[in-house]
Amino acid sequence: MDYEGFFKERIGGLKSEGRYRVFADLERHAGDFPRATRYDGDATRDVTVWCSNDYLAMGQHPDVTAAMKTAVDRCGAGAGGTRNISGTNHYHVLLERELADLHGKQAGLLFTSGYVSNWAALGTLASGLPNCVVLSDALNHASMIEGIRHSRAEKRIFAHNDPDDLARQLADIDPGRPKLVAFESVYSMDGDIAPIAEICEVAERYNAMTYLDEVHAVGLYGPNGAGIADREGVAHRLTVIEGTLGKAFGVMGGYIAASDALCDFVRSYASGFIFTTSLPPAIAAGALASVQHVRTAHALRAQQRDRVEQVRRRLAAAGLPHLDNPSHIVPVMVRDAKQCKAISDRLLGRYGIYVQPINYPTVPRGAERLRLTPSPLHSDADIDALVEALATVWAELGVQCAA
Amino acid sequence: MDYEGFFKERIGGLKSEGRYRVFADLERHAGDFPRATRYDGDATRDVTVWCSNDYLAMGQHPDVTAAMKTAVDRCGAGAGGTRNISGTNHYHVLLERELADLHGKQAGLLFTSGYVSNWAALGTLASGLPNCVVLSDALNHASMIEGIRHSRAEKRIFAHNDPDDLARQLADIDPGRPKLVAFESVYSMDGDIAPIAEICEVAERYNAMTYLDEVHAVGLYGPNGAGIADREGVAHRLTVIEGTLGKAFGVMGGYIAASDALCDFVRSYASGFIFTTSLPPAIAAGALASVQHVRTAHALRAQQRDRVEQVRRRLAAAGLPHLDNPSHIVPVMVRDAKQCKAISDRLLGRYGIYVQPINYPTVPRGAERLRLTPSPLHSDADIDALVEALATVWAELGVQCAA
Repeated sequence: MDYEGFFKERIGGLKSEGRYRVFADLERHAGDFPRATRYDGDATRDVTVWCSNDYLAMGQHPDVTAAMKTAVDRCGAGAGGTRNISGTNHYHVLLERELADLHGKQAGLLFTSGYVSNWAALGTLASGLPNCVVLSDALNHASMIEGIRHSRAEKRIFAHNDPDDLARQLADIDPGRPKLVAFESVYSMDGDIAPIAEICEVAERYNAMTYLDEVHAVGLYGPNGAGIADREGVAHRLTVIEGTLGKAFGVMGGYIAASDALCDFVRSYASGFIFTTSLPPAIAAGALASVQHVRTAHALRAQQRDRVEQVRRRLAAAGLPHLDNPSHIVPVMVRDAKQCKAISDRLLGRYGIYVQPINYPTVPRGAERLRLTPSPLHSDADIDALVEALATVWAELGVQCAA
Repeated sequence: MDYEGFFKERIGGLKSEGRYRVFADLERHAGDFPRATRYDGDATRDVTVWCSNDYLAMGQHPDVTAAMKTAVDRCGAGAGGTRNISGTNHYHVLLERELADLHGKQAGLLFTSGYVSNWAALGTLASGLPNCVVLSDALNHASMIEGIRHSRAEKRIFAHNDPDDLARQLADIDPGRPKLVAFESVYSMDGDIAPIAEICEVAERYNAMTYLDEVHAVGLYGPNGAGIADREGVAHRLTVIEGTLGKAFGVMGGYIAASDALCDFVRSYASGFIFTTSLPPAIAAGALASVQHVRTAHALRAQQRDRVEQVRRRLAAAGLPHLDNPSHIVPVMVRDAKQCKAISDRLLGRYGIYVQPINYPTVPRGAERLRLTPSPLHSDADIDALVEALATVWAELGVQCAA
């Protein structure tokens, strides 16, 4: 076995398919969102970022950065241990309370990332409940799929956003078995939104638990930014709401909000929670300040919706194909891996506009796209520059215009 | 199925076994290591921490905290995306180069935690190499076990730190199959150290890759703090060295250092690397400053060794049973879950000394202990206070004194 040769061959395969990933080396400018410096070898250049998940620019909000610096001064850099062995910091405790309150649940439980929260919570629930069956939406995120896989519980996939298919599958399962329905509110790549109330109704009919991933919704939807379930008045019907502190809240970390007993169960049994150094105090402090600010940041959310609408209008006027959806995610469809990369390279090289190409396996082959995420701080001039550059590149490269 | 009832019953079981975990709610004092404020309901009290994995107090080093605050000012709070989609920050790039250089490898690859680095790297290597067999030390950490489990590759456990048993098992495997030997340098709970050169020799004989977890060694051992493999001059013989930024380096995050091709393979295929928001710029900046400082912090390492020796001497003089081992970890053996908790509670409540009890499943039943981690900043007075309090509580509670 030639290990090095094997790794090189697999990397070569990615390159020949046009889906080898080259990371853009950036330094975002605090106080000047959405601007960043891009490093390219020894050269640097200022660019405008159009594909960040820092949806509300909270990662640069003065309340957040001040809270982080204060926590660094008070408590230092890292937590110094796992939650159980000297690594619980008072900011963790305050943040878990805040998140429980945000979602109207008894308890919150922090993880080092949204990925880990899905992997650890789903893995622990599905393996811990004896003979559990997991009903998983066909388009669930990798972290949920990996958590379910890790549990080794029986998994059934239901058709994407289809409560009727879910009902058919639930009707098929022994009523005495524990059942867990796992789905998302806003789906990251298409920006479509789940029929949460209908899914809850079906789950309740068959006594199934519900687990809702709101990572692309928290901060952005609902009267206080608690997500889509809250906007639709159904948060109380969900067994678990999972969220992230790394997207609209602008920092890092993941969490679940649920009953005291459920959170205590996951806290006590999840390997991915127990055996890892906890989040640095400054991260928890920054996230706490962000959540507290965002709960009442109605104007910020309105401004983001306005920017999203304007981007959509301008793309439509320019004849640029984008998926229509009810969320803040604007996918401009290219439908070819190499063209998608070529457009992105030209936008960056010629116009200083950074939008990462999204290729397989993040989206299916033939569904390659540029995923735009307009923020409250993208100006009219930013939008003009984006749409004009896109239209020019589109014409130059002869990209198909059918959505 | 009564879900709430099930969770409550499982929690009740932990309580009746005496191994329900209550987290100490702390606020560590930057600039006053090892002191912290402990929150207990509405009351607070200053305590001395004796069980942190911030082994060198680097989490409070002015270089580290200054670098974090500068990065917050420059780049804001979070990274804003995955490494591939707008979330690579220039500090990540610099830190990966520094870590590769530290270990004398071609490349470094960052993960959000040491847990994730083991889980994702081992999972991806063992599932990616066709028909791979993993040889896993019997006492490997949970994150390694979960990564191997996740890969679904064949796993064989070899006797702890036993190159002969490893050789016997390797001899049994088809020579053409890919083989991966996974082990640690310093084992966290007993503080014993692997015979790395002998294990490498056996692995080389059978053309097996080697994966060494150095999380409890990086920063502390070797002429430049690169770990035990470096101290013993065998770093170049290991295929992968895995480390953490959350223990002796005092911040957060995990990494692997290996060949360009291997790191590129893991970077390109590991779900737990690809689909997660990257580390905040300030975390990477703080870790970078810490690694750079620690590489030449010979006096700090010498001072830590001196403190460790003094704690051992004083424990021995007081007749307090502790495991002898060649590392910085000092396990004081209690060997009973409820007594271990009782000692810890009394140390905290009466003396303001915080040492978390370590119970099953972190250690086997009957091996319950207080795990002391002396740092360069624990003073003679701290050591006096600790040993006197321990001796008093030991006598009061009538704990067995045989090691």
